[in-house]
Amino acid sequence: MDSVVLAIICGLAAVVYGLLTSRQVLGASAGNERMQEIAKAIQIGAGAYLTKQYTAIAVVGVIVAGLVAMFLGIIPAIAFVLGAVLSGATGFIGMNISVRANVRTAEAARQSLQAGLTMAFRSGAVTGMLVAGLALLAIAGYFYALISSGLEPTSRAVVNALVALSFGASLISIFARLGGGIFTKAADVGADMVGKNELGFDEDDDRNPGVIADNVGDNVGDCAGMAADLFETYVVTIGATMVLCALLVGGPDAAKLMGLPLLACGVCIITSIIGTFFVRLGGGSIMGALYKGLIVTGVLSVPALWFATQAVFPDMNAVIGGEGVGDGFTGQSLFLCMLIGLVVTALIVWITEYYTGTEYRPVKSIAKASDSGHGTNVIQGLAVSMESTALPTLVIIAGIIATYKLGGLIGIAFAATSMLALAGMIVALDAYGPVTDNAGGIAEMAGLEGEVRNRTDALDAVGNTTKAVTKGYAIGSAGLAALVLFATYTNDLKEFFGTVAVDFSLANPYVVVGLLLGALLPYLFGGMAMTAVGRTAQAVAQDIRAQFRENPGIATRAVKPDYARTVGLVTAGAIKEMVVPSLLPVLAPVVVYFAITAVAGQGNGFAALGALLMGVIISGLFVAISMTSGGGAWDNAKKVIEQGAYGGKGSPAHQAAVTGDTVGDPYKDTAGPAVNPMIKITNIVALLLLAALAGG
Amino acid sequence: MDSVVLAIICGLAAVVYGLLTSRQVLGASAGNERMQEIAKAIQIGAGAYLTKQYTAIAVVGVIVAGLVAMFLGIIPAIAFVLGAVLSGATGFIGMNISVRANVRTAEAARQSLQAGLTMAFRSGAVTGMLVAGLALLAIAGYFYALISSGLEPTSRAVVNALVALSFGASLISIFARLGGGIFTKAADVGADMVGKNELGFDEDDDRNPGVIADNVGDNVGDCAGMAADLFETYVVTIGATMVLCALLVGGPDAAKLMGLPLLACGVCIITSIIGTFFVRLGGGSIMGALYKGLIVTGVLSVPALWFATQAVFPDMNAVIGGEGVGDGFTGQSLFLCMLIGLVVTALIVWITEYYTGTEYRPVKSIAKASDSGHGTNVIQGLAVSMESTALPTLVIIAGIIATYKLGGLIGIAFAATSMLALAGMIVALDAYGPVTDNAGGIAEMAGLEGEVRNRTDALDAVGNTTKAVTKGYAIGSAGLAALVLFATYTNDLKEFFGTVAVDFSLANPYVVVGLLLGALLPYLFGGMAMTAVGRTAQAVAQDIRAQFRENPGIATRAVKPDYARTVGLVTAGAIKEMVVPSLLPVLAPVVVYFAITAVAGQGNGFAALGALLMGVIISGLFVAISMTSGGGAWDNAKKVIEQGAYGGKGSPAHQAAVTGDTVGDPYKDTAGPAVNPMIKITNIVALLLLAALAGG
Repeated sequence: MDSVVLAIICGLAAVVYGLLTSRQVLGASAGNERMQEIAKAIQIGAGAYLTKQYTAIAVVGVIVAGLVAMFLGIIPAIAFVLGAVLSGATGFIGMNISVRANVRTAEAARQSLQAGLTMAFRSGAVTGMLVAGLALLAIAGYFYALISSGLEPTSRAVVNALVALSFGASLISIFARLGGGIFTKAADVGADMVGKNELGFDEDDDRNPGVIADNVGDNVGDCAGMAADLFETYVVTIGATMVLCALLVGGPDAAKLMGLPLLACGVCIITSIIGTFFVRLGGGSIMGALYKGLIVTGVLSVPALWFATQAVFPDMNAVIGGEGVGDGFTGQSLFLCMLIGLVVTALIVWITEYYTGTEYRPVKSIAKASDSGHGTNVIQGLAVSMESTALPTLVIIAGIIATYKLGGLIGIAFAATSMLALAGMIVALDAYGPVTDNAGGIAEMAGLEGEVRNRTDALDAVGNTTKAVTKGYAIGSAGLAALVLFATYTNDLKEFFGTVAVDFSLANPYVVVGLLLGALLPYLFGGMAMTAVGRTAQAVAQDIRAQFRENPGIATRAVKPDYARTVGLVTAGAIKEMVVPSLLPVLAPVVVYFAITAVAGQGNGFAALGALLMGVIISGLFVAISMTSGGGAWDNAKKVIEQGAYGGKGSPAHQAAVTGDTVGDPYKDTAGPAVNPMIKITNIVALLLLAALAGG
Repeated sequence: MDSVVLAIICGLAAVVYGLLTSRQVLGASAGNERMQEIAKAIQIGAGAYLTKQYTAIAVVGVIVAGLVAMFLGIIPAIAFVLGAVLSGATGFIGMNISVRANVRTAEAARQSLQAGLTMAFRSGAVTGMLVAGLALLAIAGYFYALISSGLEPTSRAVVNALVALSFGASLISIFARLGGGIFTKAADVGADMVGKNELGFDEDDDRNPGVIADNVGDNVGDCAGMAADLFETYVVTIGATMVLCALLVGGPDAAKLMGLPLLACGVCIITSIIGTFFVRLGGGSIMGALYKGLIVTGVLSVPALWFATQAVFPDMNAVIGGEGVGDGFTGQSLFLCMLIGLVVTALIVWITEYYTGTEYRPVKSIAKASDSGHGTNVIQGLAVSMESTALPTLVIIAGIIATYKLGGLIGIAFAATSMLALAGMIVALDAYGPVTDNAGGIAEMAGLEGEVRNRTDALDAVGNTTKAVTKGYAIGSAGLAALVLFATYTNDLKEFFGTVAVDFSLANPYVVVGLLLGALLPYLFGGMAMTAVGRTAQAVAQDIRAQFRENPGIATRAVKPDYARTVGLVTAGAIKEMVVPSLLPVLAPVVVYFAITAVAGQGNGFAALGALLMGVIISGLFVAISMTSGGGAWDNAKKVIEQGAYGGKGSPAHQAAVTGDTVGDPYKDTAGPAVNPMIKITNIVALLLLAALAGG
């Protein structure tokens, strides 16, 4: 169990890094009084929203925890609560550092671009390391506690606990991702609709009553929601890998094998921490500075993973688990699978940058299409969004084939694990984005020098790509993880219901029914999420118009707008709208299982449920990638025009590009990313359903 | 073989109906000289495009026919040519009647709404009956010829011929659907972009050089392309049902069972012909008049299908094919399955009307969102398009489960057959649309009384919904037909390669790889199609701008625009752009099979190929439904505003609605509908690949 202890130490290192770095961030100057006043308003709004959101989630959480305790027992219930609380805590801490780093980044950007970049990135790194560190501590810690208490690592009690831990993390994260996503985009779209289009204000004009809500949204959606999402992805992927090892591999190797994903993640936390120190401009571009950190982390991870594998399996060529386990993989082959995971990550990052970066064909083609009008901008954006699914899918497929040949299902699982092992660094790159976005807003509202806004804008443009990268990475890893979860499902099925004949063949019509139902979920969920943003945005727009009607003095700055009123309205709207779509993936597996069982017997019920799990990933992968890449491309096409192409700011092409950006907003920041936790929840609920049925 | 002869007689009846009705249409007055001049220009443009398109397709067709002859023999090669030529002929005749009926409808609309409706619907009915009649004659006739020459109905030679016939029809139809779709929408979007947005012209202003191209597009895309598509759907569905009967059912019942789909389609041609006489206003709405015809056809088809089934299996309760065939279905259960097919059709029509009709929530919500701007219009439209997939999918799933329980895979096949049996009537409703659209254009350009344009507009608005209905119906039937094709694939596999172990279980990663690759195809295809429309539309816009620059007199009507130049440009663009996407589904199965076989052995190659077939339907169903319903909803949301809501024509809401309509255009008329033949081709190529591999 040395590997588990080592992993816990690495997790603690991440937390220590987070504490030290956040102290650095908080120790910096928070700027002048006006800046602090604005930042305070954002802090209060974000805090109020998160409190309300967590209160709402807690109600659902307590009910579900009760159900878990009732059907599965107390150990899984504790795991569920642990996953849920830590997932929530990650988002909460991330948001809290982010709402304090924003004003400090604005202040630092008064000195230099490098100072602004350092401040924003440090804040992102705090969130990133806390996501990875707390997630690793949760799994490794609880796992260690359970086996120290005498449970067998491969026992059903441990397996159920790991699944329940994942469930807690997932359930929180879908609410956080969706609620935060609705908040941020409803505020953004609503504020822009009235502010930019009707009143002709610039972005972040302090006379716009929606401006604080918009900035709050960056923190509760793009920061807290994203952090909870990646926490979930981390816990589910590592947890699923461990569970699969427990189910597939027999003998003494099983326990060792379960420790390897933990240690692999642990050592990559260390390489991620080292990587953060390499994020420096050094004459190059901002993107280049961020990539430097990522590349250092990636390169160092290769020997680190080798060390981790060899520490667990000193003889790298010995067959693990004996001859009984399918393809007879070795430490060597697991190491290669983890390398492939790193390569898949690199390729997805590169492809996402191609589809969302301002210097490549896709974004340029959208900018060009804007010149012919709103309609052609949207047509081209949709075309790019559909096309952008092709290469990532091919990469994932190549990854599946290569790792399966090397190590069977376990090989696929370890590739997914090594992808997630870099989460600390990837989240750091992402969480940096909303901080710079906010910093720009504060600079604008506080009337800082134009140079400051230019610097924060430059930092922010890169943030659009890093945001898209994280989402592509999360959903890509989900493609691999879903296979692992499906394998877990079929194994559980054999163990619990060995006597029930289940035909998973595509020739079984109930499998097709399950695939269709699964494929439907992301569409229905996406449709609901988009409607929710539209509806809440319209309410925001009405409130802003009402404020100007009630207090005409706002326009002349004679009266201050009531920012809190708009924040309160978006808060209420987002929380109300997040509930039904979030429950969809929780209830769908249960309903489908019982409905098909009633119609066609338990065997077909299980087959349809299994197919539903596969259908949701097959369809969800495309829905999510097309939405997140397409949205990023629309956003940056607007940036291309704002930099002067096709007439620049204020031109007809710019107006068309603003339309595309508005469409892309809920695509990339609400519906698209929330598909990732949705896929996981569907899978985990199915696993828990099996356990509950077997227990009942 | 009486049932086959009877079917041939019914097919001939459809052709006779078509001839008589087209004589009625052509006998009517073609209006004044100006009207005839405009109609002539449309006729010439449409004829020129179709000639070029068919020339281009012929090149591909001859090569493919050679390959079929080489790998599979001369009988399938003849079948391929027959399917291809008749598919092309259907489109060609449909287009020819449509470009003559348009001006006659405009002239008739001068008398009354009823006269206009009658003329337009008769022209649609000619196309509809020719689609159904020629398709039925092709299958029944060739089938009859083969068995008369002494071949066993269930022999491999007959099966291969049926598959090759389907391939011919499919290959032509994807080119026709996509090429026609690119033409019609590139012309429409391009003409609107400059005409409406830049010059402030109304729709169909005769000073717009793109106006004739736009009207030509209605005929070559919405009429000829649609006719080829439905011809393909008909042939493939009936052919696949017959093939499945041949493969699954042994003994003397097999031959009788293969005749039943033909007879069922035959009797429904008669009920469709009767239904056409009930399309009359009678005080109600236009939609009501059309529905009257459809309902009469549907209701009469119930006893007609009972008669057909009993004619083939006089003892309706005897188990067909003996005990060996899975679920032991009877004539009675097949009849019930066909009834379920009719119910599925009715439900899909009803759901599509809900999502695209002007009086229901979805379209109204888009109209309301237009009031807040371009962005919210598109967001709400996308939300509706995603949501609109849910109910049709649930209906298809219910249909699959019910018919599978009644008659196993054969039951599903017969439900798909009875859906298609109504194609004559459904196509009639659809083909009526472009005629009224053209009639409106001619009325506008010829300067007819405003009353005429109002009448044709009223007729045209209904056309938007009927067009969406046909597409939903075609893709819905494809959902059932794909299951049948997959079953054919697995059976062929067993027969040809019984010694190769193929694992179609979802637990096999190569199945997942195939599913992902299949799911990718509609996305890649859709992205390419949307890009093609955008690119060609931009070329059209540039040409129109250039014409105004070169001849400023066009604006004052001093000089006539060069309509033919724009038509030529769209023609060249559409034909160039249609080739690559159309070859995607032809080549993908071959590449995937050989690639996976090379990597993981033939068994996994077959498994991945099978999964590809399932993946393309699972994903294609959602892509197609969301695009066609969403596009219809956007179009009608614009109509709601043009009728006066949210400020009416010229208001900001109207401009936003025009943007939504522009986005919806390639969605609903190019990419979305072409997904249907794409799915079939992928499946058929896989079947032919198996036959070729077995023969080689």
